[in-house]
Amino acid sequence: MRQHSIPETMKAAVMKKPGHIHTEQQAVPVPKADEVLIQVMAVGVCGSDVHYFEHGRIGRFVVEKPIILGHECAGIVAAVGSSVTRLKHGDRVAVEPGVTCGRCSACKEGRYNLCPDVQFLATPPVDGAFVQYMTIREDMAFPIPDHLSFEEAALNEPFSVGIHAARRSKLAPGTTLAIMGMGPVGLMAVAAAKSFGVERIFVTDLEEVRLEAARRLGATHTINVRNEDALPIIRELTNGQGVDTAWETAGNPKALQTALYSLRRGGKLAIVGLPAQDEIALNVPFIADNEVDIYGIFRYANTYIAGIEFLSSGQHDVMTLITDRYSLEDTQQAMERALHNKSGSLKVMVYPNGMQ
Amino acid sequence: MRQHSIPETMKAAVMKKPGHIHTEQQAVPVPKADEVLIQVMAVGVCGSDVHYFEHGRIGRFVVEKPIILGHECAGIVAAVGSSVTRLKHGDRVAVEPGVTCGRCSACKEGRYNLCPDVQFLATPPVDGAFVQYMTIREDMAFPIPDHLSFEEAALNEPFSVGIHAARRSKLAPGTTLAIMGMGPVGLMAVAAAKSFGVERIFVTDLEEVRLEAARRLGATHTINVRNEDALPIIRELTNGQGVDTAWETAGNPKALQTALYSLRRGGKLAIVGLPAQDEIALNVPFIADNEVDIYGIFRYANTYIAGIEFLSSGQHDVMTLITDRYSLEDTQQAMERALHNKSGSLKVMVYPNGMQ
Amino acid sequence: MRQHSIPETMKAAVMKKPGHIHTEQQAVPVPKADEVLIQVMAVGVCGSDVHYFEHGRIGRFVVEKPIILGHECAGIVAAVGSSVTRLKHGDRVAVEPGVTCGRCSACKEGRYNLCPDVQFLATPPVDGAFVQYMTIREDMAFPIPDHLSFEEAALNEPFSVGIHAARRSKLAPGTTLAIMGMGPVGLMAVAAAKSFGVERIFVTDLEEVRLEAARRLGATHTINVRNEDALPIIRELTNGQGVDTAWETAGNPKALQTALYSLRRGGKLAIVGLPAQDEIALNVPFIADNEVDIYGIFRYANTYIAGIEFLSSGQHDVMTLITDRYSLEDTQQAMERALHNKSGSLKVMVYPNGMQ
Amino acid sequence: MRQHSIPETMKAAVMKKPGHIHTEQQAVPVPKADEVLIQVMAVGVCGSDVHYFEHGRIGRFVVEKPIILGHECAGIVAAVGSSVTRLKHGDRVAVEPGVTCGRCSACKEGRYNLCPDVQFLATPPVDGAFVQYMTIREDMAFPIPDHLSFEEAALNEPFSVGIHAARRSKLAPGTTLAIMGMGPVGLMAVAAAKSFGVERIFVTDLEEVRLEAARRLGATHTINVRNEDALPIIRELTNGQGVDTAWETAGNPKALQTALYSLRRGGKLAIVGLPAQDEIALNVPFIADNEVDIYGIFRYANTYIAGIEFLSSGQHDVMTLITDRYSLEDTQQAMERALHNKSGSLKVMVYPNGMQ
Repeated sequence: MRQHSIPETMKAAVMKKPGHIHTEQQAVPVPKADEVLIQVMAVGVCGSDVHYFEHGRIGRFVVEKPIILGHECAGIVAAVGSSVTRLKHGDRVAVEPGVTCGRCSACKEGRYNLCPDVQFLATPPVDGAFVQYMTIREDMAFPIPDHLSFEEAALNEPFSVGIHAARRSKLAPGTTLAIMGMGPVGLMAVAAAKSFGVERIFVTDLEEVRLEAARRLGATHTINVRNEDALPIIRELTNGQGVDTAWETAGNPKALQTALYSLRRGGKLAIVGLPAQDEIALNVPFIADNEVDIYGIFRYANTYIAGIEFLSSGQHDVMTLITDRYSLEDTQQAMERALHNKSGSLKVMVYPNGMQ
Repeated sequence: MRQHSIPETMKAAVMKKPGHIHTEQQAVPVPKADEVLIQVMAVGVCGSDVHYFEHGRIGRFVVEKPIILGHECAGIVAAVGSSVTRLKHGDRVAVEPGVTCGRCSACKEGRYNLCPDVQFLATPPVDGAFVQYMTIREDMAFPIPDHLSFEEAALNEPFSVGIHAARRSKLAPGTTLAIMGMGPVGLMAVAAAKSFGVERIFVTDLEEVRLEAARRLGATHTINVRNEDALPIIRELTNGQGVDTAWETAGNPKALQTALYSLRRGGKLAIVGLPAQDEIALNVPFIADNEVDIYGIFRYANTYIAGIEFLSSGQHDVMTLITDRYSLEDTQQAMERALHNKSGSLKVMVYPNGMQ
Repeated sequence: MRQHSIPETMKAAVMKKPGHIHTEQQAVPVPKADEVLIQVMAVGVCGSDVHYFEHGRIGRFVVEKPIILGHECAGIVAAVGSSVTRLKHGDRVAVEPGVTCGRCSACKEGRYNLCPDVQFLATPPVDGAFVQYMTIREDMAFPIPDHLSFEEAALNEPFSVGIHAARRSKLAPGTTLAIMGMGPVGLMAVAAAKSFGVERIFVTDLEEVRLEAARRLGATHTINVRNEDALPIIRELTNGQGVDTAWETAGNPKALQTALYSLRRGGKLAIVGLPAQDEIALNVPFIADNEVDIYGIFRYANTYIAGIEFLSSGQHDVMTLITDRYSLEDTQQAMERALHNKSGSLKVMVYPNGMQ
Repeated sequence: MRQHSIPETMKAAVMKKPGHIHTEQQAVPVPKADEVLIQVMAVGVCGSDVHYFEHGRIGRFVVEKPIILGHECAGIVAAVGSSVTRLKHGDRVAVEPGVTCGRCSACKEGRYNLCPDVQFLATPPVDGAFVQYMTIREDMAFPIPDHLSFEEAALNEPFSVGIHAARRSKLAPGTTLAIMGMGPVGLMAVAAAKSFGVERIFVTDLEEVRLEAARRLGATHTINVRNEDALPIIRELTNGQGVDTAWETAGNPKALQTALYSLRRGGKLAIVGLPAQDEIALNVPFIADNEVDIYGIFRYANTYIAGIEFLSSGQHDVMTLITDRYSLEDTQQAMERALHNKSGSLKVMVYPNGMQ
């Protein structure tokens, strides 16, 4: 086991105000009895991080004081609290970023992603993972095998969204699936669908590089909606029936409508992407006549063990999703890369303790 | 057992063109080997009958030649085909009006309401039940106990919609439910919800007479949306949480939006009513953030035995829903009553073989 | 609101060794920050209490030091810890007796009844409710309406077992159900089945007084297996098909076999009662050929709100189940009554703060 | 498309009495309006065929007159009935062997495998597939892609059992699974579990050749129960927790008990194999305390499309399961091979129209 001596101070990438992230020295936090201290090794940049960086808020969550962003993370257990039993110093772990209360009705019913008292990393006012060390409650850190890199483990967070959507959509072998939007969430959704045994996955995007990545992850048919009309293609691919299930991952109103119309009778629609506008016109008689199920998707629950297992199986080429790598000092550039240059990049990753 | 001698001809109420129904003599049909002949005793007028009467079409179903309407029906087995084993002459039965193919994937998966080859009574070009005698495949006729009237048995059809919505919504004791719209379908939905053990049912309508009927059937709290704003009332009734489940039964866009907003996190919305307009603006971020489930409801499947059992239990006062009674010769007036005078009337019933 | 001054000491009924319960003075406990202090008003005697009283152990749980029994309880909030927000002094509450960890995979998946770290009242070494005051974590105490008595609220615990079995068995209107054994758990199971809309409930027992109680609670047909053979009767009541669902609640091997054989093809069997012997011969080809589902039932989860709502509805006559009432000083007699005289008594209740 | 001229007579392998199969000339059957004529290309020998061959009966199904065995089959559509629309001459198809009624409650609820009126190939008195030509209702023949061999398509029948067990067990990525018995059904069950995304599959058998085949199909860990005790190994492989799900496929009482004990709390047990003896001692307190679910598995429903899709994906090496190949004339030898020499052989296949 590697030995870690824990320093007293560390670097943290703090967003003092929207659009401005600077590295500063902070005291290394001390884990409470039921917490572990994590040496953070890799942190993915999520769309929500970029949204806080650009706009300073997401809905009712407003950045009102300096905040540390970043919540897709993995690292090494550097110290454990006095009552910790499940983990030990040196364990390599993926971190599930939402610490839930365990006592509300949502938690008790197994839908802890709906816990009203969740403390979610990088959601104001809770600080996130763009730091060298962070504490987290023991049960939120999940051991990963040696051959799984920290970067892949960090991808387990967006992968979890796909797993959750797959479970709520009851994906299984034989399902035909359309996924609209091949950003990082959409791409990880392709991987998640494959992991559930789905063989026919039709995807859309505007960017060829993303469609290529989708094919590498298992998409059967890619549709560039810049040039092609998705609906007739999907109908043709399904003998005129429509797909069993469609997911919208981009928050695009037009894509959502296409997703709905692409369904067969009795089909299922999962809304994974968050549109910028509130009201979107949906064909309600179509929903009723065809007995469509629609599932809103908010984060995930109970996905980490399954996700790690699948990412560890080596069946997915998820490493190719990581197109941009930054040190903690360059978190500002990482955010700007994710914000401005979408076409060339897929997933931007930050390495708070060096890019080993 | 009453003895029936079957006449050679019978009266049938035929709609030659929309808005015009006349009684004429027709040959009594002869059941095929796997069919039974039903002496029709009671037929409820459904909103879809009224829609065909007024507009001559519902969506892709167009009245192109004379048609007999009516599909909510019950009667007496007057004769049986040569291979019929489950029923015998004299049996009192409720008739499920959609004869499905049993061979398509929808049928085989138990969702026969989505069968593309269904033959549904009173849906062009299939004739319906405003006749003295009709044939139906044996398995579509369900015996009813002696103490259940034919009128109540005919109500099992709209009741079935409620049962189906209840199943898809997973209603159970402890569920809080809001139902928007107290037309016949909404009222039977109240009864269905009660039958699933739901104790707190909040309902809305514009007509006091309907709200009164809802209270008789088990609604806990009624809201007249002519005078009151439903949303804050429902929030207050649920300690600010919102209801577990909401159903829209009137096809009203505003009511659908209210139904959505009335939900707690993780709530379920069933779309039972068919709006006249195609596109309705729905708050999609609300659906995603709160992980709402939305279920389109199209008719029903496997509901008749459960429905008859519950209607027979005497726990519901459904007879008070039947406000208007007509003979077969007066089917035109029955349709006009259902079409024009909604406030005073709830369910209009036609009796093809006399109002015993 | 009634004012309560909290004394420093209280009476507690302590079992020093199996079979011997004496009342002694103890310090009134002080609630932690997230706990409430409950003035215990009613405690039902459960079969497990009787088992510990008689044998000093249940399976791996062994009474190794003095213990206070009793876990079916309700009372009044007498004081609240510093962080308690959901309850206040004077609230009347039912107490769910198993405090779960909220962090293990069972808890996170919504099956907290399987939590390996649960602290369950009156399960060694955790003390129970045969005391005047006890503390419990805030989220385990559920407010009850004024018109629900403490006795009825205490019955919510065995009622919860029925609700849990009903959910796992997917009871719904139209289900036919056989319940074997009409002890307190079986009787409350009848009430639970009724609350799920089940109309046809066939029950068995050896004691006429219990079958009478079952009829009061909604059993459709009672079978005294002292005189009658249950299987042919159930077959006849279901037109030779067998029931949809059967529950064994008595832990009787013969009853379990009968329950299995009473099922229709595709039926469901819930094992609610715990047999004294480990191995029971079951017809495995019957299970496979008929595609039976079997569900083990262990306690309950997420049942308290639904249970209180239903008990408060006044639809059940559960008060008649309480046949024997004792003060705290007479807990020894209460246990002996429950142990020895089964025929005349149904549920034995203890009142630690007087029988108001 | 290949042209087929249909002869008037054909060869059929008829079992005149148990243990004696001879080839004889029969008239080629003529399809009814809703049937297709299949030129049978490959037929797998199933354990039930062998059982009828050896014992002349399975439970209540008794061979009372000459019968043609064989039901795992695939072939070419040689002619179509007058109302057939979904298939045409020359289509390559897998045949689902159970023609269900589509009208009983089991069929209507989507559990058509429980249809009491099913006509199942090679189940007395229905003839099976050891013939050159057979008729089947149109909806029971499922097109297969050109690159899927008839042999693989015939394997879709035992594969369907695995898919059905997987669905009933709710297999998904992250599930840990133990499968007891690596006969053809067990081996196809490994493939089915893999297709549902299961990564950790622990299997048992007595024969090394079967365990090797299991490893080729995706088993993670194989246990030869001739030398090793399965239970402690499975416990160790799951950190002492036990597996989420266990399947018994061999009909072995000891293996069934091991499967039960191998489960974690809240685990699921599927009974796939049919024991020779009726009563098997099961630990009922273990089932209740651990809230185990047990699922009887009888054949399958709605599996053919998903199965063909997966077998066509080329992810499984199922062809290596076929160890023995016979012409129709040698069906007697094929049966004897399957009956006597289990160790060397896995799946025995018969080719009624030549071994192309």
